Amino acid sequence: VKIQPPPGMRDFYPEDMRLQNWLFDAWRSASLAFGFSEYEGPIFEFLELYELKSGAGIASELFAFEDRGGRRFALRPEMTPTLARMVAARAHALPRPIKWFSTPRMCRAEKPQRGRLREFFQWNVDILGLDDPLADAEVIAVAADFFRRCGLGPAEVVIGVSSRVIASKLLAGLGVAESDAPRAFELIDRSDRLPPEVFAQQWDAAFGKQVSAGAMLELLKGADLERCLALCREAGPSGAQAADVFEQLWQWLDTLGARPWCAFDPRVVRGLAYYTGVVFEAHARSAALRALLGGGRYDDLTGLLDGPRLPGVGFGMGDAPMIELLREVDRLPHTSETIEVFVIDADPKLFDHALQIAARLRQAGFTVDFSYKRQALGKQLKQAIARGARLAVIVGDELATRNELTVKHLATGEQRAVASADLHALRALLAN
Amino acid sequence: VKIQPPPGMRDFYPEDMRLQNWLFDAWRSASLAFGFSEYEGPIFEFLELYELKSGAGIASELFAFEDRGGRRFALRPEMTPTLARMVAARAHALPRPIKWFSTPRMCRAEKPQRGRLREFFQWNVDILGLDDPLADAEVIAVAADFFRRCGLGPAEVVIGVSSRVIASKLLAGLGVAESDAPRAFELIDRSDRLPPEVFAQQWDAAFGKQVSAGAMLELLKGADLERCLALCREAGPSGAQAADVFEQLWQWLDTLGARPWCAFDPRVVRGLAYYTGVVFEAHARSAALRALLGGGRYDDLTGLLDGPRLPGVGFGMGDAPMIELLREVDRLPHTSETIEVFVIDADPKLFDHALQIAARLRQAGFTVDFSYKRQALGKQLKQAIARGARLAVIVGDELATRNELTVKHLATGEQRAVASADLHALRALLAN
Repeated sequence: VKIQPPPGMRDFYPEDMRLQNWLFDAWRSASLAFGFSEYEGPIFEFLELYELKSGAGIASELFAFEDRGGRRFALRPEMTPTLARMVAARAHALPRPIKWFSTPRMCRAEKPQRGRLREFFQWNVDILGLDDPLADAEVIAVAADFFRRCGLGPAEVVIGVSSRVIASKLLAGLGVAESDAPRAFELIDRSDRLPPEVFAQQWDAAFGKQVSAGAMLELLKGADLERCLALCREAGPSGAQAADVFEQLWQWLDTLGARPWCAFDPRVVRGLAYYTGVVFEAHARSAALRALLGGGRYDDLTGLLDGPRLPGVGFGMGDAPMIELLREVDRLPHTSETIEVFVIDADPKLFDHALQIAARLRQAGFTVDFSYKRQALGKQLKQAIARGARLAVIVGDELATRNELTVKHLATGEQRAVASADLHALRALLAN
Repeated sequence: VKIQPPPGMRDFYPEDMRLQNWLFDAWRSASLAFGFSEYEGPIFEFLELYELKSGAGIASELFAFEDRGGRRFALRPEMTPTLARMVAARAHALPRPIKWFSTPRMCRAEKPQRGRLREFFQWNVDILGLDDPLADAEVIAVAADFFRRCGLGPAEVVIGVSSRVIASKLLAGLGVAESDAPRAFELIDRSDRLPPEVFAQQWDAAFGKQVSAGAMLELLKGADLERCLALCREAGPSGAQAADVFEQLWQWLDTLGARPWCAFDPRVVRGLAYYTGVVFEAHARSAALRALLGGGRYDDLTGLLDGPRLPGVGFGMGDAPMIELLREVDRLPHTSETIEVFVIDADPKLFDHALQIAARLRQAGFTVDFSYKRQALGKQLKQAIARGARLAVIVGDELATRNELTVKHLATGEQRAVASADLHALRALLAN
């Protein structure tokens, strides 16, 4: 019987895993540098948690199941509901602001087809309990810092930033009532995933009387930050406040060194209903890839779950588009297999000593392997090179006579005698 | 609406996550020290993969579900079937021996009750493609090394080691036919999880005519390695070979420094049908905890899946019993929240400079936070201490006049001026 891997899921063989771990480490390092704390949650939640946020229709997009007690669960398709549940449960005990990140595994019941993953990992970063554009600037800056760590500069990646309040004022100027803005955002968010004529049809059906799809997109595309802020300020106190907040955000992004990655882009509105203020999305400049990350400010994430009102801002970044982009622009790290020390016996009768030395080096913190087959020194050296070892430690008769080992630096071929207890010498050789 | 966490699942708040990450790091470090490579697989597999290994009855112990195409899947309850599938798919391309580890998340449809987790993590370590007791010794030694890294010595933990071949010879000596050994192993494996009278009843029903439950357990309990090996050698060529293999294993365990943790214990037989040789289990000496890890040698893991015959040896260790034991013997590490640098403005008008310094330090690789509220220096210092910061970097007027910052070591209270560009000075202070 041959059993296939489940469609849309990935196997991580060691070479894949090294790359995946490199990405997790980069996510984690950027998060920790900015003072975020890591959290995690269960792989499935009560189905109701997702229905509450997204309506009963969501069930068909999820992998849902029942336990024997008839409770209904679903594999998590996103982290935000779990975050809201966890924070609501301890809202009064957690010190504010809550700066949390996670790199959870998620599942979505996509139709299996090329490039559509049913399982993926997503970096989630959120600041809760702080109604200040400095929080928005921090989460955008941590994303920019991650791009920097990957070698992706402003020439490769752009973070489009806007505000739903500013966008609604712009749309109001075109005749779209503010109460209709949510529907308009939903349409605009899909505009680059739909064929232009389909989008135009949908838009014109809803808002054609006010403004045509083409004219609207043209206006958003060409919008200049100064002019938009001026328009906003003319639109009354709520507009003026949103303009001030955005201006302050723009200044903090500059101070934090993230501005070079950012561009004001009022076409960024995000699709989810719960965003209430600043919204942002990162894209590769090179290619028509999906968004690399998306996020924004939400006013009230935990209120739905009987928690206190808790404003927040955050984003999610999937693993697969990121790896795809890094491959495309040739910025993937070299993550070939490597160990520090390969222990070799110069004679099979010394193998016992070789094993003892391997054990001692492992205990001292080195990564160590050896040949499981007793074979000639030359073959063992070849195996050491194949395993990506940095040093070969050769156990010969000098161990008995002078308590010495021969250490060979495999990249340079340099070889020297080292006292068998001298771990410092090995560390120094590894540092080269 | 208040939504509960799903029963039997855990939320990892930051303090829980730090502990969990510490455990993952310890698993990973021990594995890498021994030259194992990390792999991972999907969170669910075709249900058939588990039915193939364990029979159709397994479905009721799993969380199973269908996709819209009617394919049947189950959340993974163990890693071995995924390992077998992945190895079978590339059996001819993978260099031997295959030394792999993983720390996967798993789910089992336990009835929700205290101490029964539906979701857990399990360290899996396997060597495939090597029919040599040195491989058995290596996987046992990596487990012992992990215990050592956790501060658990032979006084706290014992790895009971036996061999199914030796056990079957011992049982044959009591009158249990070798063909009945699998059924006897299944019963013996459950003996410490059943009330003694229930076990005795089940044993006596099956094998009472040959030997009573009490006499059998008494004999296994008191069995001495030398005597068992001698008995085995008398039982013909297969017994003699098993005795030689076990003796060699025992010697390798000594050479590798793992012997102090090991005890020969013929009551260890393991329940799973696929074990064919050496079997082992670790227990805490202090308490009646479940096994900390269990494993053994299997002759043919991938054969079921149309792969070539591939002998192997491996084990699995769950996260929850390990954490429980470490808590009990007070060996849990202190994993309190900590950052390296907290940046403070001596005056709110300097906040912009403070942010710029925070950004520069983060780019230079430090973990950095600051107060989001503009407040007095004393309050910011208090917040720095509450955040577990090692250093406070205070931005005052000296930045403008002498390009200097004040750095306060929060544990010692020591304070000194440091040139604002002098990152080495900060690193040196952190090293204290």
